[in-house]
Amino acid sequence: MQAEEVWGQRWTMNTLPMARAYMEVACRKQSLVCLAADRSTMAGLFDLIETVGASIAALKTHVDLVDDWTPEAWSKFCAAAKKADLLIFEDRKFADIGGISRKQMAGVYNIRGWSDLVTAHLISGPDIVDGLQAAWSDVGREGGVLLLAQMSSRGNLLEPAYTAKVVAKGKAHSGVFGFIGNGSRPDELVLLRDAVGDGKLIWTPGVNLAVGDGEMGQRYGHPRDAVLAGSDCVIVGSGIHKADNPGEQAAAYAKASWDALCNR
Amino acid sequence: MQAEEVWGQRWTMNTLPMARAYMEVACRKQSLVCLAADRSTMAGLFDLIETVGASIAALKTHVDLVDDWTPEAWSKFCAAAKKADLLIFEDRKFADIGGISRKQMAGVYNIRGWSDLVTAHLISGPDIVDGLQAAWSDVGREGGVLLLAQMSSRGNLLEPAYTAKVVAKGKAHSGVFGFIGNGSRPDELVLLRDAVGDGKLIWTPGVNLAVGDGEMGQRYGHPRDAVLAGSDCVIVGSGIHKADNPGEQAAAYAKASWDALCNR
Repeated sequence: MQAEEVWGQRWTMNTLPMARAYMEVACRKQSLVCLAADRSTMAGLFDLIETVGASIAALKTHVDLVDDWTPEAWSKFCAAAKKADLLIFEDRKFADIGGISRKQMAGVYNIRGWSDLVTAHLISGPDIVDGLQAAWSDVGREGGVLLLAQMSSRGNLLEPAYTAKVVAKGKAHSGVFGFIGNGSRPDELVLLRDAVGDGKLIWTPGVNLAVGDGEMGQRYGHPRDAVLAGSDCVIVGSGIHKADNPGEQAAAYAKASWDALCNR
Repeated sequence: MQAEEVWGQRWTMNTLPMARAYMEVACRKQSLVCLAADRSTMAGLFDLIETVGASIAALKTHVDLVDDWTPEAWSKFCAAAKKADLLIFEDRKFADIGGISRKQMAGVYNIRGWSDLVTAHLISGPDIVDGLQAAWSDVGREGGVLLLAQMSSRGNLLEPAYTAKVVAKGKAHSGVFGFIGNGSRPDELVLLRDAVGDGKLIWTPGVNLAVGDGEMGQRYGHPRDAVLAGSDCVIVGSGIHKADNPGEQAAAYAKASWDALCNR
């Protein structure tokens, strides 16, 4: 099936190359799943690609949490991800001004050199998006910025008025790929999608096939409900890699998310 | 002069060891100056300590912006800073949840191992302070968290209602060293100090001995006015390191800030 057909307005209205790259990957893989690659060793990360790579569209990383990280090992990991047709999404939560964030994309980790997507808070102002996009341009690459619009952490300050400002500024910015929303409450997700409109993507953690099954009181939504409510990618961690059979479980998430998109 | 005498209520009410460590350093150096160490080479950083170390109390770093960074060179730099009686303040702007931020203090840069202070946004919730403090504890060190309460960047979202929430949560948290405020407008700084009360420290960029002399329309306040309005440390960058004689200029900032504290 063609990406344009499946994604409809989302394809037509989001012309950022990386947004279309994601929509195409999702179609090839028939999966709207991003795996939170919570592994602290390179071997663990390679294992994830091997085990579940076929059923996911992207890997969410924290490059600075890998204990045995080296530039060489990371480079191999990125090559393996590319071979498995996965986007790499570094959840760095950039939060400085534009000029500094641009430079923070370089350094020892050289995030600009391998990330397809990064997260940023808009707290320091919208110039951060320009800074991050400039960093990718500096090395002849393209990427997309996911802005934090909602979080579920205790006492977070992404309250409705703040979210509204992030959405208003982010939806008007060509360098913004989309927003991180909260997938655990479909009703609220519908409101976020209304505010965002049809163009930018919304990616959502907080989903699990076993709804309500969370550690330390965390609430989960069903991936199907999240996608029907307007999510374009479900970010799943322990729901997959702590399963008895991670490969099968990843395929189940892929099917639930893809079927929901086709019915949307 | 004894720190308790000079700092008064600030000493009595802020029992965080790192807060008292700063107040003591400031007394020994007779300086309330933190130098923004905007250098992209290790040689440039060593040169700053050499040139202006005697007149400043702390160095503000961005470890990930140093082109020729190695763990060995950084370790020598930290030793040189300690020898020059300087605190090291990594302006990382942490902005993730507590558990992730704790781990981000490790990694290749190992910020927990050498930083005395770090910045954080409270956007993801107050657990970030616990996470950062836990990271220092993990390696048997102590440190302090500076929360972003105000910024001057274009379109930033640290509006008065947001600032009020950060101050309310931050002033009640024992792991919070203080807040980053905006030093360019003494009237607003007085209001921030009123909200913060007498305990936590306020550190302020946006000051310059040549008031009004800013690049790209940036406004500056005088360090004396900032300290009299309630700032406990002025963060100065180009005002010192772009001066014809950085050593002399640093001494002038030290004198202006220290005299103001003694008159406060």
